[in-house]
Amino acid sequence: MTFSSFNEEPQGNYDADYVIRYSFGASDREGSIEQLNKLLQTLAGAGFLTEIRPGDKTTLLVFIRAPEQSLHRATHTSRVRDWLYGLRNTQPDGETSPGPQTDAERLRAINYMLTAPVEEGGANITPKHGEWKNVDSIFPLHDDKTNQAWMRDWSKKTLLTREDLDQIRDKFGEKIGFYFAFLQSYFRFLLFPALFGFSSWLILGYYSPIYAVVNCIWCVVFVEYWKRQEIDLGIRWQVRGVSVLSSKNRHFQPESEIRDEDTGEMLQVFPWTRRLQIQLLQIPFAVVSILALGAVIATCFAIEIFISEVYNGPLKGYLVFIPTILLSSLLPIASTLLTKVATKLTELENYETKEDHDVAFIQKMLVINFITSYLAIFLTAFVYVPFAGAIVPYLDVFRVTVRPFVSQEDEKTINHVDFKIDPARLRKQVIYFAVTAQIVNTCMETVVPFVMRKLAIKYKEYSEEKANGNDKSTPVYDDHPDEVAFLKKVRNEAELPEYDVTNDLREMVIQFGYLSLFSTVWPLVPVSFLFNNWLELRSDFFKICKEFKRPVPERADTIGPWLDTLGLLAWVGSITSSALVYMFSNEGLGPDGNPTDIRGWMLMVTIFFAEHIYLAVRYVVKATISKIETPSIRQERTQKILQRKSYLGTLSVPQTKPDIGDKTVEITHASLEEDARAHTLQEAHPSDQFWGRQKNWSESLHIGTTIIKAYQGPEAKKQQ
Amino acid sequence: MTFSSFNEEPQGNYDADYVIRYSFGASDREGSIEQLNKLLQTLAGAGFLTEIRPGDKTTLLVFIRAPEQSLHRATHTSRVRDWLYGLRNTQPDGETSPGPQTDAERLRAINYMLTAPVEEGGANITPKHGEWKNVDSIFPLHDDKTNQAWMRDWSKKTLLTREDLDQIRDKFGEKIGFYFAFLQSYFRFLLFPALFGFSSWLILGYYSPIYAVVNCIWCVVFVEYWKRQEIDLGIRWQVRGVSVLSSKNRHFQPESEIRDEDTGEMLQVFPWTRRLQIQLLQIPFAVVSILALGAVIATCFAIEIFISEVYNGPLKGYLVFIPTILLSSLLPIASTLLTKVATKLTELENYETKEDHDVAFIQKMLVINFITSYLAIFLTAFVYVPFAGAIVPYLDVFRVTVRPFVSQEDEKTINHVDFKIDPARLRKQVIYFAVTAQIVNTCMETVVPFVMRKLAIKYKEYSEEKANGNDKSTPVYDDHPDEVAFLKKVRNEAELPEYDVTNDLREMVIQFGYLSLFSTVWPLVPVSFLFNNWLELRSDFFKICKEFKRPVPERADTIGPWLDTLGLLAWVGSITSSALVYMFSNEGLGPDGNPTDIRGWMLMVTIFFAEHIYLAVRYVVKATISKIETPSIRQERTQKILQRKSYLGTLSVPQTKPDIGDKTVEITHASLEEDARAHTLQEAHPSDQFWGRQKNWSESLHIGTTIIKAYQGPEAKKQQ
Repeated sequence: MTFSSFNEEPQGNYDADYVIRYSFGASDREGSIEQLNKLLQTLAGAGFLTEIRPGDKTTLLVFIRAPEQSLHRATHTSRVRDWLYGLRNTQPDGETSPGPQTDAERLRAINYMLTAPVEEGGANITPKHGEWKNVDSIFPLHDDKTNQAWMRDWSKKTLLTREDLDQIRDKFGEKIGFYFAFLQSYFRFLLFPALFGFSSWLILGYYSPIYAVVNCIWCVVFVEYWKRQEIDLGIRWQVRGVSVLSSKNRHFQPESEIRDEDTGEMLQVFPWTRRLQIQLLQIPFAVVSILALGAVIATCFAIEIFISEVYNGPLKGYLVFIPTILLSSLLPIASTLLTKVATKLTELENYETKEDHDVAFIQKMLVINFITSYLAIFLTAFVYVPFAGAIVPYLDVFRVTVRPFVSQEDEKTINHVDFKIDPARLRKQVIYFAVTAQIVNTCMETVVPFVMRKLAIKYKEYSEEKANGNDKSTPVYDDHPDEVAFLKKVRNEAELPEYDVTNDLREMVIQFGYLSLFSTVWPLVPVSFLFNNWLELRSDFFKICKEFKRPVPERADTIGPWLDTLGLLAWVGSITSSALVYMFSNEGLGPDGNPTDIRGWMLMVTIFFAEHIYLAVRYVVKATISKIETPSIRQERTQKILQRKSYLGTLSVPQTKPDIGDKTVEITHASLEEDARAHTLQEAHPSDQFWGRQKNWSESLHIGTTIIKAYQGPEAKKQQ
Repeated sequence: MTFSSFNEEPQGNYDADYVIRYSFGASDREGSIEQLNKLLQTLAGAGFLTEIRPGDKTTLLVFIRAPEQSLHRATHTSRVRDWLYGLRNTQPDGETSPGPQTDAERLRAINYMLTAPVEEGGANITPKHGEWKNVDSIFPLHDDKTNQAWMRDWSKKTLLTREDLDQIRDKFGEKIGFYFAFLQSYFRFLLFPALFGFSSWLILGYYSPIYAVVNCIWCVVFVEYWKRQEIDLGIRWQVRGVSVLSSKNRHFQPESEIRDEDTGEMLQVFPWTRRLQIQLLQIPFAVVSILALGAVIATCFAIEIFISEVYNGPLKGYLVFIPTILLSSLLPIASTLLTKVATKLTELENYETKEDHDVAFIQKMLVINFITSYLAIFLTAFVYVPFAGAIVPYLDVFRVTVRPFVSQEDEKTINHVDFKIDPARLRKQVIYFAVTAQIVNTCMETVVPFVMRKLAIKYKEYSEEKANGNDKSTPVYDDHPDEVAFLKKVRNEAELPEYDVTNDLREMVIQFGYLSLFSTVWPLVPVSFLFNNWLELRSDFFKICKEFKRPVPERADTIGPWLDTLGLLAWVGSITSSALVYMFSNEGLGPDGNPTDIRGWMLMVTIFFAEHIYLAVRYVVKATISKIETPSIRQERTQKILQRKSYLGTLSVPQTKPDIGDKTVEITHASLEEDARAHTLQEAHPSDQFWGRQKNWSESLHIGTTIIKAYQGPEAKKQQ
């Protein structure tokens, strides 16, 4: 079987493990060659095979292949490390052949060999960092054949199996495996609320308290189930507790270096008290974010209401787009600025590990994400509907927004006497976020970049052809005919951006938020999400395979800070749902469109009870789910029991069954008495006498019997 | 140095490890002797030395001593088990001499040898259970000398040191060690609120919002600090995670026995789903408890108000005691009944381990404890004060309670026109619970039983003397003169009840509750508790030493379910404190004693914000405290690092530094080519050609240099 017998796609990878994209700037030719020399020496020193091919005009492609021998050693070391850190229960044996390896483990081990610091046994090649400025990126190659087969397979399935998830993990590592497992669990769990939501929409209508309660309970069960699932998967994939094996944050700047007296290690120290001080900056950051984004959103919201519901002058049909235009231009600017601040803040906090750094950044971004995602609906539900009557008169200040477009005379005709609260506004908004925005999002994420890339490639080819004098017959690069297709694929992949699973997770968590917070408004929300997520799983996989470099497999035992976010959203959901139900359950509005009969204290009491019942239910659900023993957990338990049993078996105390006048006992007594005599030579030990009175157990029995008979005698006589 | 040179107290223990109190009933003399025979054989078979002395009229005292040899083996086995279960980081070495032992470890190991099931290497002696009906109790003897020395020492100290706590743990085991450590931490933490409360009482007065906020924060910090402290102590005492080594619940009744296919063990199974169903009974139990106890307390409360504040007929001075008498007679009855139900329920839930059983029972009792402790104050604060005006007219029904004592004519004079809410009632009640009840409690707990015991002993001696014909010169028992004092002490201790640390912990947790829930009412609460707890620590120790059998050392890594209770109380404290402050901060009452200006929605909003700010603060405090590295945690980390380092050191990959034409690289290439040739014999491998193009890294460098020069050449020229 030869690879060349395949068509252009799917393309084999010629056993190349990694490709280094080495860029040589035009300015420093000698320096580039110098560094290439060093790179190749380092790679050879670490035992890698290398091949060089041209990339594009300013880059080389260095293909790397790890020989079996050193790969085995690296894998073994990695597994021993796992065992020492408690990730594996059994000590791995056999350095020469460490047993079956997954694709992901192999790539991870090689990546460790390439990038880990020298003192930890790596080659310390750090792309774009330190002495490796010209190393643009290090990436593995996509396994197109498998990817295509999976995509075909999944497009015919409703649910992925456990084995499918294992395969994803085997190819792309646990971190991405966890994302797909989450997506899959979420999708499966959505079946119930989708069904219930649909029935509820048919029978109960909007703002049904029953739907709200069921939805809240569903959210809790899902979150707690997923936590359990994480443990299960963590054990199944042998990554439970992997966060202890954190990788160093390359940007960490220690305040001082201290020699640890006990371990003899040089510790780079940055005092946690100082970090805490910097972390306190998060509070003003959160306040500023809320104010800035809140101001933008609230203003656009107010303008929209003014134009759509108060203003009735000319050009209204066009003017209604003003707020949308404002929002879609101002919000990204504000978000980008705040993201920069968040990045800067996280850098200042100066974390020692990459993992801590990422978590801290995600936490900061959460505030921004929440506001941009949910604030608009919050404003409609809890400001616009209850207080519109009071606020709308003040909206006249937004008259300035229409002034540029309307003549002075026309402006005078603006009046707002016949303002009415639009009770359907809230629902329209929720539908927008639950349906329209999801579809738009999927397109923006998958389809648009794909088309853009295709166009970019076409353009590049065109311009290169032009540069080469429109000679279509000769290929652009002087490649060996066998390798043309392969090198085309590699050049293609080298151009792609790097994948970060965080963004996809965020998207799903935000989506869960709409469900938990606002789905009482429109019970079809889960139905929409169900369809969306079937597609999402597939389109995300397509995206990873086609629009990103193959990610370097990373390990994880959780979806990270998103887990807490899910819990938080479910919790807040209990508050918003109860408030929405109370306020709107009889469509909430009086005849004039004002919600007259909402009583403040009743609303607060409703929220208070809903929230605390939620918390109690959560406690119960947690306790119940913790009792479920998943297959992996069971298997691990069994394994541990067997291990301990076999070890303790070698130690078990031989149980001596004494006959009368048992020898061991006598020997013990004899030795005691000898001890006692030996002691007497030095000093009298008072307890020796005490323990010498009854020579062995049968003497004790004799004394005991005597006592029993003596004491019981008279009493027994009395009874007669 | 001989023990006999000491006075009667403190008394040495003649190296006796345990004493078995063996009771022989009057009815079955032969059976008693038979069982004694078996007992002594079993003990001898397990390698113990025994001595028998008479106890009182119906009991024998069997003294047990474990020879060094078997004790060493038992200790070693126990330590290996700890290591296998992850309690120890290092594998214990040396079966012959397992290294230094604490008193507690020795006693625990011997207890295990005595009571563990045969299949786990014990002698399976189960007091009062199964075949050992006549074995009344197995208990170690108090080390009076040390106990007295400690009591003297501590009475002069304000704070116990870390070493003192270690000593308690070494003598009494980790479970009691944890109680004293908690008491000590709590006492130390009380210093701040006592000081702040006192200043606040002087300057800010009652119901100060500032005090409330500080108090809430203090509660959170204390609870979170203690959680951290538990981890620290757990590591220091090598008990972290000890709960996995749970001991079997002897009353567990499996539904079926299943052979575990994987481990080959016979598993006794009781399905968790069935247990869950029984656990659901907790809900009606809690409801019934609340209703029953609530009804008793509320009724007595109402009668009290009626008599003290409405009734103004004759005999008022005496009648006010009616509710107190009612309460102190009805409440114990109701509590006892409910406790019985709780015991029954817990038994029905049929837990597999003793630990689970205890936790489940404590959780059930919590409801009862909470109601009896806090409901009265709750009623005053949240029912009496806001609603008394509306309720009092209905209290006339309690006229019946005075009727038996008052003539019909007098009864007519009863009127309740001039009823006024007593704003000081709440404070009086809090003062009662914070000061009076605490003092009474300490007395009831320590002084009264001590006096009662002394009297009982005197009475017993008196009656025995009488039975022996008033002959004071001859001793009651026919003891060896050397042993008279010792046996007197042992007979004394055999009579004492068994100590359960749960009750003392409950007392402290309930006390913490008064502080967190109601101390805004009277900021001197922490001052009172500070003094009380200094005494409490000492009197509890006195109690353990003098009024209870020496407890068998048990291990624990936490104070158990009380920890969650502390968290819950701190949480509820944020709600009650904010509500109290809002309602009473300007003494809360209008001129007529009615709190007229309390607005429901404002109250609810206050509570809502207070609670959520509390939760946010808790989150921050938790995060901050988790960053503090305590000495033990640091030490453990260091130990683990050293261990891993030493192991990984043996595996580290030798780093080959290549010179030009490096040999290892060439060898690798050569071997690859050989491989390639070998493959060619079978089938052509397409990647061989690819990897064969550049023979080694210097060839790669050559190609790379050529490409760089070729591509860069024209561009460089352009730039010039």
